[in-house]
Order: sequence, then C-alpha cells, then structure tokens
Amino acid sequence: MPVLVVGSVALDTVETPFGRATDTLGGSAIFFSAAASVFCPVRLVGVVGADYPLEKLGFLEARGVDLGGVVRADGESFRWSGVYSYDLNSRETRETRLGVFADFRPRVPKAFRDAELVFLGNIDPGLQLEVLEQVDTPRLVGCDTMNYWIERRRDVLLELLARVDILFVNDAEARQLAGDYNLLRAARWIHERGPRFVVVKKGEHGAVLIARDWIFFAPGYPLEEVFDPTGAGDAFAGGFLGHLAWVGSCEPDDLRRAMIYGSAMGSYAVERFSVDRFRDLDANEVAERVREFREMTAFEVRLAAEPHV
Amino acid sequence: MPVLVVGSVALDTVETPFGRATDTLGGSAIFFSAAASVFCPVRLVGVVGADYPLEKLGFLEARGVDLGGVVRADGESFRWSGVYSYDLNSRETRETRLGVFADFRPRVPKAFRDAELVFLGNIDPGLQLEVLEQVDTPRLVGCDTMNYWIERRRDVLLELLARVDILFVNDAEARQLAGDYNLLRAARWIHERGPRFVVVKKGEHGAVLIARDWIFFAPGYPLEEVFDPTGAGDAFAGGFLGHLAWVGSCEPDDLRRAMIYGSAMGSYAVERFSVDRFRDLDANEVAERVREFREMTAFEVRLAAEPHV
Repeated sequence: MPVLVVGSVALDTVETPFGRATDTLGGSAIFFSAAASVFCPVRLVGVVGADYPLEKLGFLEARGVDLGGVVRADGESFRWSGVYSYDLNSRETRETRLGVFADFRPRVPKAFRDAELVFLGNIDPGLQLEVLEQVDTPRLVGCDTMNYWIERRRDVLLELLARVDILFVNDAEARQLAGDYNLLRAARWIHERGPRFVVVKKGEHGAVLIARDWIFFAPGYPLEEVFDPTGAGDAFAGGFLGHLAWVGSCEPDDLRRAMIYGSAMGSYAVERFSVDRFRDLDANEVAERVREFREMTAFEVRLAAEPHV
Repeated sequence: MPVLVVGSVALDTVETPFGRATDTLGGSAIFFSAAASVFCPVRLVGVVGADYPLEKLGFLEARGVDLGGVVRADGESFRWSGVYSYDLNSRETRETRLGVFADFRPRVPKAFRDAELVFLGNIDPGLQLEVLEQVDTPRLVGCDTMNYWIERRRDVLLELLARVDILFVNDAEARQLAGDYNLLRAARWIHERGPRFVVVKKGEHGAVLIARDWIFFAPGYPLEEVFDPTGAGDAFAGGFLGHLAWVGSCEPDDLRRAMIYGSAMGSYAVERFSVDRFRDLDANEVAERVREFREMTAFEVRLAAEPHV
C-alpha cells in the first residue's frame, strides 16, 4: 500500500561539531520518503527550483518513490542552513530561503489521489488542507506542524486537525498548541480537536503515542555517536507510516510497532548527514534494530513472590 | 531479605505551584525507605537533631523500617528548603542547613552488618565509604551522588565507585562525572571505574539501565498532575533495590523488572508532598501500575509480511 506525502524538498547546509555539509538533500518530504520507502511505495508531492539536482533523488526513485508530484518551478530551491550546538541538543537557524516554496500550491496528480495513507509534512496548514481536499478517501492522515504555524495560523491549523488522525509533534509544540505544560493533558486537548492519536517526539528521549484510552512509549535508540539530528522527526514519521502501509492495517498492535519502527528510522537519520544513512538501508537491517528495541524494553511481570506488605 | 540504607533524614520545606509544605519528612534515606519498605525490610542509618519528630516515622517502622541506626544528636536537624518552577522542571534551593548532619559519622549497628543489599544515599562519598567498610559482605551495593561531590570530592568518589555495583545518577551527573556529553559513552567510562550497572534517571523521561552488554529503558509513568518532584530519585532507588530484595536475586530479568518498580515508585513520590503517597500504598497497587508499564511498552515483533525492499 503506498503512502502519499507532501512537504518540503530542500537543500540543507548543516554544521555540526563533526563537520559541515553544503546543499545536501533535505526537507520533510525527502526525509519522510527516504525512511518510508524502505517499507512501502511512496508518492511525493512538492516543488523544487530550477537549480535542484533532481538526479540525486534517483536512489529514492529506485526504491519506489514516485516523484510524479514534484513540480519544477522557475526560481531558487528552498534552502535551509543551521548550526548545531556542541551537544547537538539545540540548533540555530542561519538562513531560511523559501525560494519557489513561497508560492507553492500543492497539486496532487490524478494517479496519486486514491492514496489511503497520507502524511502532511510540516508546511503551512492551509496547504496541508489543500492536499487533503485533493485526496479521494484517505483512511489515515498523519500531520506534522511547528511553532511557527501554531502561532501564526492557529485557526487554519485547528480546521485541519479536525480531519487528521495522527498528529506528530515534539513536546514543546504539543505544550504550545494546547497551552498546557502537562503532556498528557495537552494530548487530551488535542484529542478533542480531532486527532485520535498524538505522537509526541522527544528527541533522544524517544517518543510517546497517546491514544484516547492507551499509551505507548518508544525509547530513543542509544547511539554512541549522533552525527546530525536534522530530519529525525520526519524519518520517524516515515518509519511509522511506512510500517502501517507495509502491514496494511492500523490496529493498536500495529501502531505500537509503528512507534518502534519510527524510533528506529529516526535513529538512522541522525547517524549521518542528510539522508545518507538510508541509501543502503534494507528492511532486514531495520528488523534487527527493532529486535534490539524489544530487548531494551521487554520485561516479565512476576507475581510468584509474596509481597512484604 | 533486608536492605541497608544510609542517607539524609531531613525536614523539607517545599514550595510548588500547587502549594507549600513546611518541615515535612524528607531526605534521601526517608524517601528510599518509604519506597523500599513496600517490598522488604529496611535498616536505616542516619542522624537527626534534638528537634526531629521521630514519632512521625511510625508508619515506616510499622512497615518494617528498623530505625536502630538513626542517632539523635544535639543540635538542629538537617533542613532543606526549595521552590519549584511553574513547570516543575527546575528548582531553586532557598536554604540548606546541615545542622547535626555537618558532623555526621555513620555507625552501622552490629545487627545491621550482615546486610547483603546496601544503598548509599547521596551524602559525602567519604561517609559512603565508611558505611561500606562496616558491612560484612555486601552482595550488591547501590550508590547515589550529585554534582557537589563530583566537583569537590572526585578522588574519594572514584575510590568509592570501585566498590559499587550500581550507580544511580541523573543524566547531567553522568555527563559531568565522565566528562562526556554522550550518555552511552559516559556509562562506559563509569563501567571502567567499577559499577557494573549505571542507572541514569531522566525525570519525566524515565530511566535507563546501562549494563556492560545490555541496556534497558523504563519510561516515566505519565501523570496528569505532578505535585512535588522532591524525592523521586530516592524513591526510584527504593523501588529498584526493594524489588531485588523481595525476589532475592539480581539476574538481568530481575534488574529489568527492578527498573520498572523504580519508575513506578518514583511516580508515586511526585503525586503528593513528602512521602505522603507511600503511607497507604501496598504491593498490590504497585503491581497494578507495573502491569500498566507493561501495557505501555510491550510490542510484538512481526515478521509475517514481506519487506518492500
């Protein structure tokens, strides 16, 4: 089952304590696609400028990412440039040049419109809505957003949320959106606006899925070297929805596993610059990491001994 | 099997966004004992001043906390006073009055010396060593410490670590001790100094146990109301070692479960001021929360479907 994704297709310039990469493949739709395409076909909707090296997306096409929804427009590609702190826990944006992205109006090709799984990457919620309106009968809609839209486009964002099944946000965004410091209460607030599932991403601390009547935690995969955190959240969403597309089901057990696949793909994203770690990644390698996650979280409840009190 | 604990026995004055509590029961040894005594007998070594309301520890004695190692000295009891921020994620110490704690030299009563499980609460590492030297043949030694000792008593702390099996620290302390931002590498550094197990506590994000060849994550229990974070770390250690004492074993499976019991007891600590939540807590209630932890972390690896790549 294919996943439809809309989001940014960018050229990133990233500086970390370990080095610098200039004009590398970036953007939410690219990180999502790189991760999801390990598991399922992906249909990508986005825009690039005249200067975008589309041939560099060949490895994604080879893995079943259909670029039929990527429009090449006159002008410069979207560029983002940022510097990470020594501990990689904070970053400063040096420059955001929207380029052709400033006038982007997503158009979903006819052949893409029967998609059942949809991921709305972090772009203007108005555009996210436009995409949804072009999809026939989406079964499961995932959506990302950020502080910028929460502050400036709150009304449209709330209109969108009413049609979203899974909201992917980080902890600060969940708190800001709901105006509540407590994550659990913030998730309840979001549930009331539409999304049945809130996935709160917490960086190295992992992620938590809060459903209306159950909760699931996925730890962050412990790495001795974190190289470049850019794109981890989108790779998480790619692993999550990629897993659901792969199994063709979204029962609670599938969603729980999807959290682990998400966390695994987020961990690969940070091991190298850009989407480099995904180039040769195959599903068996991911399955091995998923088994490691199980080792790191599984325990048996023991009721044999007599309690002291 | 009993656990021996040495640590502070204090009177805490705590202000949170939800209220203020004056001169309530506090200190590492008290929080540890309140949690551990749900599962096993506890032997407490500490000091209180002439003004300490020992009768208020009656509920602990009733649950098998032997206060035979608590000395009453001339002078004032150890007092700590602090204020938490609105989000409870940071706190400011208003006052620390050591009182009789300034001249404390722990003496382990003869009847306590055959203890096999020992917890060295967060006090001067020199005193922690003195306690260890008075215990006949400890099988498993857990130890807590803090930035103050890491900075000022590094040599003695390292001497102590060589005799410790499990070091309980928070993430900032692990990083500071090892001088490495990466937690996994920091834990490897600590392993080389003695402790086979490093338990890194991360507040609301849970805790991770890093052994030499395996890792286990326990999430933080999601609470809609966090009332007072004081003592959560000591309650964690109490639940952890209390569970091991209860089952009388410290195999990897027991340690994994101990992490969950620790996280559960940490979550109870923050639900009320002081040790109030532990007063009526029984092992069945804890077992129910442990089952909830299992619900929140268990997933099945699925290998039925054919991977896409």
